[in-house]
Amino acid sequence: MNAKISNREATRTQLLQSGMELILEQGYNNTGLQEILDRTRVPKGSFYYYFDSKEDFALNIIDYFNNTQSNKILECLSDKALSPAQRLRKYCECNKRAIEESRCCKGCLIGNLSQEMADQSEVLRKRLEQTMSHWRDLFAECIAEGQAAGEISTTSSARDLAELFLSGWEGAVLRAKSTKTPEPMEIFMRVMFDRILGDG
Amino acid sequence: MNAKISNREATRTQLLQSGMELILEQGYNNTGLQEILDRTRVPKGSFYYYFDSKEDFALNIIDYFNNTQSNKILECLSDKALSPAQRLRKYCECNKRAIEESRCCKGCLIGNLSQEMADQSEVLRKRLEQTMSHWRDLFAECIAEGQAAGEISTTSSARDLAELFLSGWEGAVLRAKSTKTPEPMEIFMRVMFDRILGDG
Repeated sequence: MNAKISNREATRTQLLQSGMELILEQGYNNTGLQEILDRTRVPKGSFYYYFDSKEDFALNIIDYFNNTQSNKILECLSDKALSPAQRLRKYCECNKRAIEESRCCKGCLIGNLSQEMADQSEVLRKRLEQTMSHWRDLFAECIAEGQAAGEISTTSSARDLAELFLSGWEGAVLRAKSTKTPEPMEIFMRVMFDRILGDG
Repeated sequence: MNAKISNREATRTQLLQSGMELILEQGYNNTGLQEILDRTRVPKGSFYYYFDSKEDFALNIIDYFNNTQSNKILECLSDKALSPAQRLRKYCECNKRAIEESRCCKGCLIGNLSQEMADQSEVLRKRLEQTMSHWRDLFAECIAEGQAAGEISTTSSARDLAELFLSGWEGAVLRAKSTKTPEPMEIFMRVMFDRILGDG
């Protein structure tokens, strides 16, 4: 019985992982269900045992990606050996490395899906928005800590700075995908940390 | 003879305009040629008189959009009644108004297409990259003027600031599309102009 449950869990995870990779590579509309089934060798009937529809599948992929990503954010932001601004920088560096490893392809799954699906599916838009706002709140907490410690200026609110940090980073990742160089991410870090989050 | 040429030009423009609107509404992969033909009532044969392929059509849409957008940028940035930073702010305000008028849907055509197509078509990626880099250079020129006049700090180079201005704005527009509120654009303007481009 336990083996059965763990088999099911493994198949579900395999579908989510392959779906995530395909959507990252070629977008949501451009990815057919058949392609996901071919890659995972899971029969169509089984797919519908796990997910109600392609939209439901995408919702689960967002949550699956968010689990990994939120853990990555928390791991960087909870490193108490670093100052708050240094932790934010560590997050950027960690992300930049991953993006460089994929030769500046793919980008951010949540950013990509927001761009593609925010006007197409209100269900997906809401989940994507909640995901990004959750990240923003994690950044805001760290920025507020830096402000309390006198490391980060209080001229702007922690929430404003966190929103700019998030949207600015998403924009830099998009430009990296478009230029196929890490330079836009490097410029973002240079200006943000030297001028706004001052951990220099 | 002239009437014939101007008819052809009108049909071509009509195809570009409708194609641009459809791609803005629902993305490139999600927009079929038939849909464009239905909307414009142009027969398929005529479409191929004007464009070699869907990709060639998209290249022409990018140029068509860029003409309008570059003129909008130049119009804002050449308003000598304003200081350089005020001109950049005017550009943001003008863009924000247009995005609010579309209820924060659609976003930026060049940003959207970069997100969707940069990994799918090297031909489109190059044109999209050239377009955005052209905009960045226009912003850099204005920022350099502000630096020379002592309005904008020279701590960062004009090119770095222009890249951050461009990518940060693209990110804010994406977040506006995802949150369906203009707030991310307002926050971008608040922090950028108060803290980095200082025209306050």
